[in-house]
Amino acid sequence: MRRVAESTVRRLSVYLRHLEEFEHQGLGTVSSGALASLGGTTSAQVRKDLSFFGSFGKRGLGYPVPELAEQLREILGLKRRYRVALVGAGKIGSALAQYRGFRQRGFDIVAIFDADASKVGHQWNGLTVLDVAALEEELVRHPIDMAVLVTPAEVAQAVTNRLIQLGVKAILNFAPVQLAVPDDVVVKTVNLALELETLSYALAHRSAEAS
Amino acid sequence: MRRVAESTVRRLSVYLRHLEEFEHQGLGTVSSGALASLGGTTSAQVRKDLSFFGSFGKRGLGYPVPELAEQLREILGLKRRYRVALVGAGKIGSALAQYRGFRQRGFDIVAIFDADASKVGHQWNGLTVLDVAALEEELVRHPIDMAVLVTPAEVAQAVTNRLIQLGVKAILNFAPVQLAVPDDVVVKTVNLALELETLSYALAHRSAEAS
Repeated sequence: MRRVAESTVRRLSVYLRHLEEFEHQGLGTVSSGALASLGGTTSAQVRKDLSFFGSFGKRGLGYPVPELAEQLREILGLKRRYRVALVGAGKIGSALAQYRGFRQRGFDIVAIFDADASKVGHQWNGLTVLDVAALEEELVRHPIDMAVLVTPAEVAQAVTNRLIQLGVKAILNFAPVQLAVPDDVVVKTVNLALELETLSYALAHRSAEAS
Repeated sequence: MRRVAESTVRRLSVYLRHLEEFEHQGLGTVSSGALASLGGTTSAQVRKDLSFFGSFGKRGLGYPVPELAEQLREILGLKRRYRVALVGAGKIGSALAQYRGFRQRGFDIVAIFDADASKVGHQWNGLTVLDVAALEEELVRHPIDMAVLVTPAEVAQAVTNRLIQLGVKAILNFAPVQLAVPDDVVVKTVNLALELETLSYALAHRSAEAS
């Protein structure tokens, strides 16, 4: 399979959400135009995105909803559930642990770790917060597929190295730091302040254009 | 100014973070190679990104740290502070309200709204959670620059329409829905489950390649 841009993968996720909505409503087929307008893109883009993965639908008849949804779940690796460990039981970690969107999409948080003794032992959503010192012991016994990192920046790389030693190949990183990982490990960094900076950039340049 | 891709703007934010670190350490100049390796990119990319905005640095001497940092702050619209309203006082909203990264970068959460009567009136970080019914009254009196939307999907568009009526031009959206906005309004949507799907996609295709 050709290398596919992350922006394409993101659009596939968005299409899948709408297809599942259509499935739920009992719709049989959907046009690329309908998927495009819901996804904030163009029909040509929808056709191009889907063509990466083979041939779907028939010209003039649209895409068959249940089949396309099923193929997108397959492509996105969503036909299974994932065991996810959360490292960092601060405010953001707490919100993520309780975020229903993860479980709905097949991502089960099965372990929570923190370095703060005042948090260790607390119950969160039926899970006990564990001491991060026990990371190896716990994850060797109960392996995970992914980790969500919500630690302070200063310790994020050290925790990452330990996760990699444990064979973890996918990390969602909320620490405001660029993690160094081997080629076979995928990291996706979410920096919330940086999201606001894309807005401040846009505002600054809107104003400049307007004046 | 030419239209600049969001990925470029994101890299500028990352460069700025490292430059500010260098500033703090008292470094006078930095090479494109050093910025590149910290930012997980190439020197050619760094030079290309910066060249969009004019000519920086001297060949062979690197970039002057304080000047480049200052110009990036200017480009990213970070030479001022922004008044931000948070709509939605759930778990994620609570974490965002207390997220220090926003204030550190110049984004001050100055108002919090929720529709849930059991939340209205509570004190959060020195702010009183207000009834979302009072959105217009409050924001006309104390205008804001940006809104962070953390409402349920079903009400996100209606709240967005009200914010647009109030003249808000920039929205960071955490609701799992595509918002329709006029051309002069910029929306950045963060979908946390979707971030995990970029990882599940990568894992699925890694395994496929390996097998």
